[in-house]
Amino acid sequence: MKERGIGSGRIIRRKQDGSLEFQCDDLTVEEPLEIRIGRKTLATTMRTPGHDEELAAGFLVSEGIVRTGDEIDNFSRPASSRNRENIVVVEPAAGLKLRLSSAKRFGTISTSCGICGKASIDAIRQNFPPVTSKNIRIDIDTLLALPSLLRKQQGDFARTGGIHAAAIADIDGNLKIVREDIGRHNAVDKAIGRAFLDGLLPLDRHLLLVSGRASFEIMQKALAAGIPIVAAVSAPSTLAVNFARESNQTLIGFLRPPSFNIYSHIERVILDSS
Amino acid sequence: MKERGIGSGRIIRRKQDGSLEFQCDDLTVEEPLEIRIGRKTLATTMRTPGHDEELAAGFLVSEGIVRTGDEIDNFSRPASSRNRENIVVVEPAAGLKLRLSSAKRFGTISTSCGICGKASIDAIRQNFPPVTSKNIRIDIDTLLALPSLLRKQQGDFARTGGIHAAAIADIDGNLKIVREDIGRHNAVDKAIGRAFLDGLLPLDRHLLLVSGRASFEIMQKALAAGIPIVAAVSAPSTLAVNFARESNQTLIGFLRPPSFNIYSHIERVILDSS
Repeated sequence: MKERGIGSGRIIRRKQDGSLEFQCDDLTVEEPLEIRIGRKTLATTMRTPGHDEELAAGFLVSEGIVRTGDEIDNFSRPASSRNRENIVVVEPAAGLKLRLSSAKRFGTISTSCGICGKASIDAIRQNFPPVTSKNIRIDIDTLLALPSLLRKQQGDFARTGGIHAAAIADIDGNLKIVREDIGRHNAVDKAIGRAFLDGLLPLDRHLLLVSGRASFEIMQKALAAGIPIVAAVSAPSTLAVNFARESNQTLIGFLRPPSFNIYSHIERVILDSS
Repeated sequence: MKERGIGSGRIIRRKQDGSLEFQCDDLTVEEPLEIRIGRKTLATTMRTPGHDEELAAGFLVSEGIVRTGDEIDNFSRPASSRNRENIVVVEPAAGLKLRLSSAKRFGTISTSCGICGKASIDAIRQNFPPVTSKNIRIDIDTLLALPSLLRKQQGDFARTGGIHAAAIADIDGNLKIVREDIGRHNAVDKAIGRAFLDGLLPLDRHLLLVSGRASFEIMQKALAAGIPIVAAVSAPSTLAVNFARESNQTLIGFLRPPSFNIYSHIERVILDSS
């Protein structure tokens, strides 16, 4: 029985000893998802099927289009469309006018990059206020334990080698939400979308852990959810670091126990474990 | 003297032995690039500065907007703009009307995902014909030599750990063009853009090598340039494999000598090295 999100295909594999074999291989599923608000298409993104409503919700939060769960009435699939499994329709609460002037500003967008379709450089940056949470501190041993906790939950990743993970953890290091997707921004949107739908925003006592790199867009998505600490297994970019410093976010990169780097707001990491 | 594309920042590093040190760290630069055709903004993408004209050219080729070099008159920066280093203006040849009806179809697009801003699922797939090159075959030893050749040219990658590479090689395994970018689609656009500007398209006797995964969009960009063989160091997606089969492209994944997988059109790989 295959999990959703995993496909398979017949391949030829050259093995370590140089011999060849035919076999069936697991592959990460990549399919487009069209996000509509009512009848209007907002974005199309290449994603791994599953948790589509969370992806749509997280995307709307990240783009500043919705702020509270009661702004969304329901999610649906179009009744008749040959692509209905790849379309999610967000119905706003009755009488609510979503900030579609804001959505119109970027035209249509893909979550796999987070900034797509924006009409100009000035439109890339949302205007979320900096994180305000104070007195939130994470223990160094808690931080160092996170990557192995994430790997234990990443069933898909190990088999296909082609999927990203994002997790939301509390300040004691308990993973609350873990999501995977072929697009790293989608994985973050799904995790934030789940928290949003559960009424947990702002996540001002939580951290975001990502299995890959930390780009500007990842930091901005975390900020939209009010997350004060972001930890990435791989490298951050210059813009991610600058954004984190301005937004009062703690950014940790290359989290590969026993080592890691801290790029901003070190005051939230308790370095002297005792 | 820093290379362009590399920035630096002061960080705190926890080392293998658990001790802490302050140091200066290399980071991959991430900045937006706005691509304009004349006065119209076509796309904004998060990229690593450098080779911006190639990026713009490769993007236009991948999206089917230009097909030959004489359709572009020149590239320029706007004379006055505080962001002028992050804007590239493509001036079409005099009297030429670019297929902007096609561009309009997707609104604005980012190359970091390749499909952004497209108004619907049907608009994602371009209508490039399948690869027609026949009798192009690559030797197994040539294939196995490629990753180390690429790594030797990837100065940035080793230092920052946050950059992707794309290379165009001839069928004898000589790397002709190598480009790096924080976005893997941008790296491919830069490489294809360079080949386009040099009048080398279609690249029907070449292969594309990418340092990461092979998604649908990577395969479609290769097809736009007429490339019959794509080799990726990491995993392909289901859609990449299906696309390669339909487009008569050979797709090789997990190219990690001495092993690799072949997902489509194996007839172009000479498996019995002798």
